[in-house]
Amino acid sequence: MSSPLNVAVVGAGYWGPNLARNFAASTDWRLAAICDLDETRAQLLARQVGHVDVHTDLTELLARPDIDAIAVATPARTHHGVVLAALLAGKHVLVEKPLADSREHAVEMVRAAESRGLTLMADHTYCYTPAVLKIRELIAEGALGDLLFIDSVRINLGLVQPDVDVFWDLAPHDLSIIDFILPGGLRPTEVSAQGADPLGAGKSCIGYLTVPLDNGAIAHVHVNWLSPTKIRSMVIGGTKRTLVWDDLNPQQRISVYDRGVDLAQQSVDGGDRAAATVSYRLGDTWSPALPEHEALGAMAAEFAASIREGRSARTDGLAGIRVLSVLEATTRSLDAGGALVGVDGSDERPALAGAGAAR
Amino acid sequence: MSSPLNVAVVGAGYWGPNLARNFAASTDWRLAAICDLDETRAQLLARQVGHVDVHTDLTELLARPDIDAIAVATPARTHHGVVLAALLAGKHVLVEKPLADSREHAVEMVRAAESRGLTLMADHTYCYTPAVLKIRELIAEGALGDLLFIDSVRINLGLVQPDVDVFWDLAPHDLSIIDFILPGGLRPTEVSAQGADPLGAGKSCIGYLTVPLDNGAIAHVHVNWLSPTKIRSMVIGGTKRTLVWDDLNPQQRISVYDRGVDLAQQSVDGGDRAAATVSYRLGDTWSPALPEHEALGAMAAEFAASIREGRSARTDGLAGIRVLSVLEATTRSLDAGGALVGVDGSDERPALAGAGAAR
Amino acid sequence: MSSPLNVAVVGAGYWGPNLARNFAASTDWRLAAICDLDETRAQLLARQVGHVDVHTDLTELLARPDIDAIAVATPARTHHGVVLAALLAGKHVLVEKPLADSREHAVEMVRAAESRGLTLMADHTYCYTPAVLKIRELIAEGALGDLLFIDSVRINLGLVQPDVDVFWDLAPHDLSIIDFILPGGLRPTEVSAQGADPLGAGKSCIGYLTVPLDNGAIAHVHVNWLSPTKIRSMVIGGTKRTLVWDDLNPQQRISVYDRGVDLAQQSVDGGDRAAATVSYRLGDTWSPALPEHEALGAMAAEFAASIREGRSARTDGLAGIRVLSVLEATTRSLDAGGALVGVDGSDERPALAGAGAAR
Amino acid sequence: MSSPLNVAVVGAGYWGPNLARNFAASTDWRLAAICDLDETRAQLLARQVGHVDVHTDLTELLARPDIDAIAVATPARTHHGVVLAALLAGKHVLVEKPLADSREHAVEMVRAAESRGLTLMADHTYCYTPAVLKIRELIAEGALGDLLFIDSVRINLGLVQPDVDVFWDLAPHDLSIIDFILPGGLRPTEVSAQGADPLGAGKSCIGYLTVPLDNGAIAHVHVNWLSPTKIRSMVIGGTKRTLVWDDLNPQQRISVYDRGVDLAQQSVDGGDRAAATVSYRLGDTWSPALPEHEALGAMAAEFAASIREGRSARTDGLAGIRVLSVLEATTRSLDAGGALVGVDGSDERPALAGAGAAR
Repeated sequence: MSSPLNVAVVGAGYWGPNLARNFAASTDWRLAAICDLDETRAQLLARQVGHVDVHTDLTELLARPDIDAIAVATPARTHHGVVLAALLAGKHVLVEKPLADSREHAVEMVRAAESRGLTLMADHTYCYTPAVLKIRELIAEGALGDLLFIDSVRINLGLVQPDVDVFWDLAPHDLSIIDFILPGGLRPTEVSAQGADPLGAGKSCIGYLTVPLDNGAIAHVHVNWLSPTKIRSMVIGGTKRTLVWDDLNPQQRISVYDRGVDLAQQSVDGGDRAAATVSYRLGDTWSPALPEHEALGAMAAEFAASIREGRSARTDGLAGIRVLSVLEATTRSLDAGGALVGVDGSDERPALAGAGAAR
Repeated sequence: MSSPLNVAVVGAGYWGPNLARNFAASTDWRLAAICDLDETRAQLLARQVGHVDVHTDLTELLARPDIDAIAVATPARTHHGVVLAALLAGKHVLVEKPLADSREHAVEMVRAAESRGLTLMADHTYCYTPAVLKIRELIAEGALGDLLFIDSVRINLGLVQPDVDVFWDLAPHDLSIIDFILPGGLRPTEVSAQGADPLGAGKSCIGYLTVPLDNGAIAHVHVNWLSPTKIRSMVIGGTKRTLVWDDLNPQQRISVYDRGVDLAQQSVDGGDRAAATVSYRLGDTWSPALPEHEALGAMAAEFAASIREGRSARTDGLAGIRVLSVLEATTRSLDAGGALVGVDGSDERPALAGAGAAR
Repeated sequence: MSSPLNVAVVGAGYWGPNLARNFAASTDWRLAAICDLDETRAQLLARQVGHVDVHTDLTELLARPDIDAIAVATPARTHHGVVLAALLAGKHVLVEKPLADSREHAVEMVRAAESRGLTLMADHTYCYTPAVLKIRELIAEGALGDLLFIDSVRINLGLVQPDVDVFWDLAPHDLSIIDFILPGGLRPTEVSAQGADPLGAGKSCIGYLTVPLDNGAIAHVHVNWLSPTKIRSMVIGGTKRTLVWDDLNPQQRISVYDRGVDLAQQSVDGGDRAAATVSYRLGDTWSPALPEHEALGAMAAEFAASIREGRSARTDGLAGIRVLSVLEATTRSLDAGGALVGVDGSDERPALAGAGAAR
Repeated sequence: MSSPLNVAVVGAGYWGPNLARNFAASTDWRLAAICDLDETRAQLLARQVGHVDVHTDLTELLARPDIDAIAVATPARTHHGVVLAALLAGKHVLVEKPLADSREHAVEMVRAAESRGLTLMADHTYCYTPAVLKIRELIAEGALGDLLFIDSVRINLGLVQPDVDVFWDLAPHDLSIIDFILPGGLRPTEVSAQGADPLGAGKSCIGYLTVPLDNGAIAHVHVNWLSPTKIRSMVIGGTKRTLVWDDLNPQQRISVYDRGVDLAQQSVDGGDRAAATVSYRLGDTWSPALPEHEALGAMAAEFAASIREGRSARTDGLAGIRVLSVLEATTRSLDAGGALVGVDGSDERPALAGAGAAR
């Protein structure tokens, strides 16, 4: 085992403590410092995780040569500045979702990391849960066949956020998961979104997002802050099998149904009319046992591995850009009354494909 | 108790037997005849329900003076012709959903019934289930407050229909229910729809329909023929309470949650900036006991009552038109790539309001 | 296909109509007559199933040479008399559960059938459901390994029966199922039962029945008329896998868990002390697709097949005796304050083993 | 607010850390020390909860005059010695369940506490969950009417314990809960138990316990280490309503059903024959909102309050004795083949009633 890397957590608010605890518990890492403008908050967290150093000045932190990497858990609008400074200082960077507050900022950050050969990783935590890792694996090995549809529901009574709507608050989870499990990542050319603000909160509190995928397939995301019941589910239909992920059912999170509709096209009357012959499969259901591990621990390990192996992280900066591209298009579609709008960057893959090649 | 009315069922295919059995079991009705072009099929049904008369000629049936009403369970494209003939012959008419194959045809049918003072009733069966009747009652008495959203999901492995897409096959259920429970009926000005045909069936097999309602509220319908799991649920959010209807949970079909988000608008800095103060209610859940009765029996009783009392049925022809108006707009939105499109008739309520006034 | 056998249903009360409908729909059978002391009730049923003959006199019915078999759905206390008369008349007999009102009567019935070479079959309907047939098959092929425990729960708000307690009302279902799925049938030597009558109904309304099985295994049955929630479940634990049957979950009635506890005995300190080494398996879960068929239809087919092939039915009279033996011991245990009491017949297998040999 | 009391946790194994964390987080308490024979383990825990003192010598700890109370989380067989020493030193004591390894030891401990006017509290943690507190409250206010039955199930794949069987491992939870919610506590005169050891572990791994209650009511507990599915549920039937507690359903832990069977006894034939008239209530279901709090925090608060107010704790030493009385009778019943056996102490309430009077 190589010696641990030194990491500092920047931002001691809501998410920072989770990152700090997991770095502290990891054998890949030595948690070296906590940095927050609010010294009291930083010191409180530093004590809880074992009396690490405290900084209130980011520049001072970045000047330390012993720090290999930083994990950024500050508000999204500050990501661009903090991350560029860290990259300039030669540090590898992990960033809480969303990667940035705009696609343009994210692209700058990815280019800065690429040009310096540093790891820039998006903290898409859900991708490191045993369930999502298993889903990715099943799709990759062809267990579902070609994908037909993905239907994701993430609803619950939720805090009406002051600065973002329900799409920007919740959909990054769904989008980063879909990006992770699709063999080629989430690269739609168009999206359409419908939102509602029935309470007059000044932003969408209920949202529906439609993402056409290749070959007639479709992804749909339902996010909702106003539902009294909590649902976190995803149905992934394929030509061979269909998978249902119910994240709130710990006894059977993933079910794989060997059921579906088969359609055989055949010519009719020896000619140009085509009729569909439909048949059904009503096979068994199978629920794979999932290993028990914390997603954040697995993510910390992946961050270390990507640095050591000089490769892109599984959820790299490009994944962060892809999620932001869809979020920005979502906002434009809402502004356009739900019309299908183009997704930026869907035609510029070559330009940014370098770091993603090893994915 | 007045003497029973005589009814004939036209169409002995999939739905006709259900209608026939329920009329045969009703004390309001005497099932007098079965009519179908296929005599064997008609006779088989006639035997099963107690040896009633059989006709293969509709004209002959309609010429019988003892027949008070007919129930039409033929394919949708034939509704217009059959119903107009029956109305011309002075018969009251019940029509399987959808009321017609086009809004225009349905409007003609409704006008024909109005001008003759006959009952034209849409067989929106779900509206007569104990659950939907209770939901309508709770909304009418204000138990939910103002409605914020309706989210309806109706998914299952389903037959890919030869002549209609998944919207026209399944969404009439959702739309007729929403029309029934909304105090003013379902009268949107615009809708937007997204569909997918990943199997190449030549029509949408997966559908998402967004219906903006008054005051920023929204209704959304998810219909899907390709899901291996069956879901039939509706969440109805209100300012006071939120109701969840899970039709596949016979032990607790309806749950009313006294939970929600409250938003108080207040001015900030003595001025023009407004900030939302959010608070939560996390109150009790309540599940009303529902009476046990068959929906079709209740519908047969309503058909008889509307005739005897000379009033519109609870699911009258206008309800059928409203559902068709949304379905037609759905198809136009699909053709327009999911754009918001106007709903015909949303501005012509007065013209057809006569028969609906007593609703 | 051989020509259908003629059957008459005796008893047109609660269960008779179900039998009649299934015989009428079977290609193995021709439903020839309905017999009931109450002529009106008999005629009503006869009309519903297609105008078959009606008898009010059993002797007259049994005298008809065209009748091959009768199905008895009269009260349990009359089974003995009706069945013996039918057997004397040379008819094959199917009897609603429980086979008789006492073990002694059942033994007489079985002997009478054996001596005449006639089929005597117990209508243990549940055994012919797709779920139970699959469970039996899985156990027979060793999928569960050696059986460790069976825990059966059958609770619901139920009618307090006038003549029987909750054990005699509900437990025949559990016991006949357990008898059917155990490779050697249910042949315990002792049972113990606890009951409660908290409403003062004069009989147990809540019951717990413990049945020690071979090799330290145990079966337990919980029956309850006073539960507001309905549960019909059975957990069958084996050394290899454990099966859970939830009859109220149509989407996943059977789940097979590849989970369990493994215990390896090893000597400790080179000597006489033994310590258990425990290990766990946390493998996948699998839910087999079940064919869709009506249990009563499958039972009617088995009745015909057993007659034609001159073999015991899968739920033969001996199965009925085994169930009654446990029920009688249950009553004795209740009378003895819950003590373990012996089960009659557990030592006399050879005497009655003839007809069961082919099982 | 009075100044915090000083507490030391004795035992830093499985449960001690939970106690330590909750005392550390409580405003009622100052966590002053950790004591364990294993110094490394004690120091590890001391660091995690904020650098408190460490002791390896109990006598030394008890000699400290600043310590007001100790919380004992050592193996059950050591409780008697540790607790008596602490009481002799004038400390209040909280003890992990079960209170002692025998009823006799527990009685000595309770007497020692009583004679010194010190609090001896049983750590029956479940009793301080919001669900159980609500159940106790509902029963106390008569919402369920007279109790008819309690059916408790606690099954899961579980560690086969080296020193205790499944009854002593799991049933203390069920018994302490039942003791807590019954208005007069759990004071049966007899119990009967059935166990099974199908793996040959040398002790029961599956257990069924029947506890006759007053007025014909019954409690039943099913504990099982070998079930692949986890169930933690309790059904509590009353003459007015029935409550179902499903601890694994966070969205609806408690459901109160206004359903049941009513039985009216009436004389028949003007004479001595009595017939039961049965009727059903099929009313609404209601699920109370539960406050969100940690059970251990509420227990720590109760421990402090009982000391400050000089009153018995809600789960006092007598509650611990009552649970042990039933556990010991359970073992005797198992030894007697499942026979009903008497419960020690069920006739000696006055002798120990002093401390319990204020309950």
